[in-house]
Amino acid sequence: MRPSSVHYFDDAADLARALARELGASARPITVHRFPDGESRVRVVPGSGRSAVMIRRLDDPNPKLFELLLAADALRQSGVRQIALIAPYLPYMRQDRSFEPGESVSQRVLADLLGRVVDRVVTLEPHLHRIHDLAEVFACPTIAIPAAPLLAAWCRGRGSRTLIVGPDEESAPWTRAVADRAGLPFVVGRKQRVGDRKVRVTLPGLPPVDRAVLIDDIASTGQTLAAAARELKRAGIRQIDAAVVHAIFAKGAAATLRRAGVRRIVSCDSVVHPTNAIATAKALASAIRGPASRPPRRSER
Amino acid sequence: MRPSSVHYFDDAADLARALARELGASARPITVHRFPDGESRVRVVPGSGRSAVMIRRLDDPNPKLFELLLAADALRQSGVRQIALIAPYLPYMRQDRSFEPGESVSQRVLADLLGRVVDRVVTLEPHLHRIHDLAEVFACPTIAIPAAPLLAAWCRGRGSRTLIVGPDEESAPWTRAVADRAGLPFVVGRKQRVGDRKVRVTLPGLPPVDRAVLIDDIASTGQTLAAAARELKRAGIRQIDAAVVHAIFAKGAAATLRRAGVRRIVSCDSVVHPTNAIATAKALASAIRGPASRPPRRSER
Repeated sequence: MRPSSVHYFDDAADLARALARELGASARPITVHRFPDGESRVRVVPGSGRSAVMIRRLDDPNPKLFELLLAADALRQSGVRQIALIAPYLPYMRQDRSFEPGESVSQRVLADLLGRVVDRVVTLEPHLHRIHDLAEVFACPTIAIPAAPLLAAWCRGRGSRTLIVGPDEESAPWTRAVADRAGLPFVVGRKQRVGDRKVRVTLPGLPPVDRAVLIDDIASTGQTLAAAARELKRAGIRQIDAAVVHAIFAKGAAATLRRAGVRRIVSCDSVVHPTNAIATAKALASAIRGPASRPPRRSER
Repeated sequence: MRPSSVHYFDDAADLARALARELGASARPITVHRFPDGESRVRVVPGSGRSAVMIRRLDDPNPKLFELLLAADALRQSGVRQIALIAPYLPYMRQDRSFEPGESVSQRVLADLLGRVVDRVVTLEPHLHRIHDLAEVFACPTIAIPAAPLLAAWCRGRGSRTLIVGPDEESAPWTRAVADRAGLPFVVGRKQRVGDRKVRVTLPGLPPVDRAVLIDDIASTGQTLAAAARELKRAGIRQIDAAVVHAIFAKGAAATLRRAGVRRIVSCDSVVHPTNAIATAKALASAIRGPASRPPRRSER
């Protein structure tokens, strides 16, 4: 895709400008006027081309989604034929089935909604459980940019005597991908729940290293990473950092990590947070330029 | 339609219970769990029937709309075939065209969204400008319950020497409908804008009455009603009340009305507000039981 304009909500202004520079496109603000009754009037600044990028950070998604539909409508009205939505963090990917009777399958509802109003959805490292490809739930083409290369680059910068640590079994494939790309050793912990909110992480024997980087895609409460950090400290590792993809931290999570001995926490800039240190604009730009993963044809489903 | 269950978000619990009693259906709460990251998990308590009512108050609509889609999905999963959405106040009806280049036509976007996920939309007195029937924009059948009978019943209770007052030309047909049903005299004012936020209302000669009721469908800032109230006071009317359909008041609007001499402000219970005095449950119930206004066929459009 060769979009001539990048239309951005104000929560993604920084990312949009960097992305527009990478793409040689113009960055155009989407303005939102909020009426006293809570309704929004959305206005785009039309570009000249037939294909456009629309970008919004979708953490805290509920109040943002309808405005996204309004902006897509405004772009269509202004002559845009192809809209690529960049949602650097894609919400609702965890609720991929009904865990109890009467529960909505939010993942599918979100996928249906977005797939109907845009022509392509681009995101960074979606948090998927039971499905393995966004194409299984989205009706439009999707691009899921892997975060491993971004985290690997940051980890490589820590020096050669650095250990990559995945806190639990779920993170194993991902930890390996980061370590392999960074050319660094890695270990993966084993997680046990002890009580309602507490977890214990057991680590295997550690190679001789100077420092460790704990990695994860999301660190909501930070409990798992904190338990792993305590184990690393107990094993004698002095410098412990944490690198997460999406800075979806619950209140107090960063403090929990620091108390457990984590010296530095870094994250990709997909969710705005003081820990942001890994830029995603270049990766987003090359995803926009490249081909997308198409949903399977009916016969393949 | 003969729904066996009325599923309600907590903002419409009172209305849902009254409605369920009228319909002989069960009232079932839709529970919303909000995760720390701003996502919602929505759960319905499935009923036994194939058709169901879902009700939510849609003032301050943006954060509520996606949860509505989640609830509709959960109802479908539980076997419901026909969903009637009751939105006692239907938002976004004022933005019915692009007023400036690049603006979304929010009315159509909302209509498309709701029309795709439910089978019928029921509302009270939608605030329409350039279209005259919801069927012009909704793809699903709709019912717009007229508020005139509800307001007329309240006005009739004020006594026979009561004047119904429409503040401006736009309110003329509606004022007449209320007055005719109440068997009371009426006048309609003429509105002029004087400056950016100020309006002046001129009234014709008034019949001999003891009191006046100003009526309107929405009173955002209250400026127009306040200007009309000042004129009524100047004409010697001592008791001035105001009856509005949807209590969409901007901050300070009620105080503006009171300062202008309005003694009592009443509203329908479509939007929760201390002024609520006119119950809508019976009207909603008979609308649910009756036929809906269908969108025109393609050839008629």
